[in-house]
Amino acid sequence: MTPDTVAALLVRLRERRPLVHNITNYVAMDVSANALLAVGCSPAMVHAREEAADFAAISDALSINIGTLSPPWVEAMHAAAERAAGLGKPWVLDPVGVGATAYRTATSADLARRGPTAVRANASEILALAQGTGHRETGGVRGVDSSHASDQAVDAARALARTTGGIVAVTGAVDYVTDGDRLVQVSNGHEMMTRVTALGCTASAIVAAFLAVGDDPLEATAAALAVTGLAGERAAAASTGPGSFRVAFMDALHGLSPDEAAAGARLG
Amino acid sequence: MTPDTVAALLVRLRERRPLVHNITNYVAMDVSANALLAVGCSPAMVHAREEAADFAAISDALSINIGTLSPPWVEAMHAAAERAAGLGKPWVLDPVGVGATAYRTATSADLARRGPTAVRANASEILALAQGTGHRETGGVRGVDSSHASDQAVDAARALARTTGGIVAVTGAVDYVTDGDRLVQVSNGHEMMTRVTALGCTASAIVAAFLAVGDDPLEATAAALAVTGLAGERAAAASTGPGSFRVAFMDALHGLSPDEAAAGARLG
Amino acid sequence: MTPDTVAALLVRLRERRPLVHNITNYVAMDVSANALLAVGCSPAMVHAREEAADFAAISDALSINIGTLSPPWVEAMHAAAERAAGLGKPWVLDPVGVGATAYRTATSADLARRGPTAVRANASEILALAQGTGHRETGGVRGVDSSHASDQAVDAARALARTTGGIVAVTGAVDYVTDGDRLVQVSNGHEMMTRVTALGCTASAIVAAFLAVGDDPLEATAAALAVTGLAGERAAAASTGPGSFRVAFMDALHGLSPDEAAAGARLG
Repeated sequence: MTPDTVAALLVRLRERRPLVHNITNYVAMDVSANALLAVGCSPAMVHAREEAADFAAISDALSINIGTLSPPWVEAMHAAAERAAGLGKPWVLDPVGVGATAYRTATSADLARRGPTAVRANASEILALAQGTGHRETGGVRGVDSSHASDQAVDAARALARTTGGIVAVTGAVDYVTDGDRLVQVSNGHEMMTRVTALGCTASAIVAAFLAVGDDPLEATAAALAVTGLAGERAAAASTGPGSFRVAFMDALHGLSPDEAAAGARLG
Repeated sequence: MTPDTVAALLVRLRERRPLVHNITNYVAMDVSANALLAVGCSPAMVHAREEAADFAAISDALSINIGTLSPPWVEAMHAAAERAAGLGKPWVLDPVGVGATAYRTATSADLARRGPTAVRANASEILALAQGTGHRETGGVRGVDSSHASDQAVDAARALARTTGGIVAVTGAVDYVTDGDRLVQVSNGHEMMTRVTALGCTASAIVAAFLAVGDDPLEATAAALAVTGLAGERAAAASTGPGSFRVAFMDALHGLSPDEAAAGARLG
Repeated sequence: MTPDTVAALLVRLRERRPLVHNITNYVAMDVSANALLAVGCSPAMVHAREEAADFAAISDALSINIGTLSPPWVEAMHAAAERAAGLGKPWVLDPVGVGATAYRTATSADLARRGPTAVRANASEILALAQGTGHRETGGVRGVDSSHASDQAVDAARALARTTGGIVAVTGAVDYVTDGDRLVQVSNGHEMMTRVTALGCTASAIVAAFLAVGDDPLEATAAALAVTGLAGERAAAASTGPGSFRVAFMDALHGLSPDEAAAGARLG
């Protein structure tokens, strides 16, 4: 995979403007919707059991994030994922805080068993989801922030990808993307991204958008993370703290040109 | 209607500081509350069935937006609209995504039958709501973004206004406001407003605020859209992308003087 | 209490990076999570009955805010508060809009009876909560914004603190913090803080964070309000309206040094 692939997928995304259906948490809705708009998609947040599957059917991709889960929403997540999968549409699982409570761990495992096209999470979450054991055994889930470096979860990511049959992405200082066999590293991003809430959730939504336009889910996932990371780098250069960083991040997602993506993507 | 009316209503709004009750979607809450504060109102987001009608009774106007609807919220919407209408308070309906799913279409039709003081929506939504037929027949609802230009929905808006007995506003590059008979065009705004999530929802909330202080609902609705559009124009001039645009939009709503409103409002 | 205490607690907060559990309203989630991250904590928003108590058990402090309450959330608030209290963890109550509806008044009274470590609210809310009488009798609750100056609620705050056995903070142009006996005044802040939604809610979350690291709840609460107010002062100096103010507020919470906190805190 080369940086040119990142640029090509970004071009295609902006041409096709995919409709991305999100069932995501209350904290992430605003920033994720704005990021999807900024990068060139049409986002929608639709969670009711009464319509989630119908909306999945008219969308180009689905992003499921359990950040502020509750039983009716979990029902809608299953219904939407089932419909999306049945229609061959890509869907992403972001298992926020898996391992922190029994409820999150069980819900994440249930959704993972449906075979998401991609899972995106931090290292602690990937470890917890892969091991299916909760926070004690993985030695460090603490709320929703990671207490592991991303390279500590590469083996777990490979194992998880073999189980789900899809892509698994561990994000951190370096992002690792695997299908259980191939492994792509993405070294874009900036530490300030950990100081703005829900940017991980937003990365998952952007992965869904790229899956809607990519032929190879591994490359689409890596491209999404490269674009997200590049926007973070540009934002860091243009800001003085987490408030101005978030603003600049949106501007950067909007302004990032395919040439800049090709020049800046650091893949390995 | 002249630009001076826009200025006069803006002055009155800031003097009276109306309490605007919102039952709106999760994505729009933050930006709508901040916009209402910025322009000079006191906003509140209150949705529980246990209190929505009580809160409508102490508010000056009500804004109902179905963006992230669910059955308990829809119940609260009906209860609040009934109370507001019974007390002669203005209320606005924003039928986000009507036509995209059967649930949205049915909910929007039920609420429209209550006779909202004003309906504000994009062209695809107005077409769907007027025709009451769902997305296939209207040929283009796609998620929550419009696939029609606003002038394509003027006839539908007139028809809908005659049905509801209130004002209908179709927003887009040009906004059209009608009571079924009179028609006002508002040509303020900027394309970047479509790249920030929930600015349409926010326009609906600002319409509710102006209805609280206006004597003529048609003029109040048009004035609200002119002020919103003017803030968008100023924001575009002061920003470099959707992130900085949103920030500048709030500053502009706050800073817009009545003289600037009179000078800038483009009505036809 | 001296300004050096504010600085020392800020240092300790950034060293320990407490995990702050929030059950807060939809409007406040984004800004509160970002503010907690910016000042140096790890925030999480967890509200489901299925996990709220479990999450309280692994957190360092809990912030409960009834801004957009509904029955399942109120259940979760009680469960989380009970667990937190049982484990000796501090928890904060923010009774948004108490007095505006019967539902808010009853819910706030029920939660207050659990003895929160601190209550933070505006003057109208403190008056309503202390008197337990609803908006008619207190002569002025109007939505969620205060219609009283903070000094009008000092006596009510003292009385309420004696009832709850905890700290009560009335915020406004001057903040008053009392344990029913001692009284600390905090004179930091800026009027523009009333023009950005949910900054009061955010102050409550920051109080929870400081309670997690402070030995004296009165001093911890006052320190939190001083830091919040100082960030507001810096933001006002760096902004031109409520949009840019909010951005600058986050940057200021992140950038505020202990020396600046010691130099700027105005306690009395």
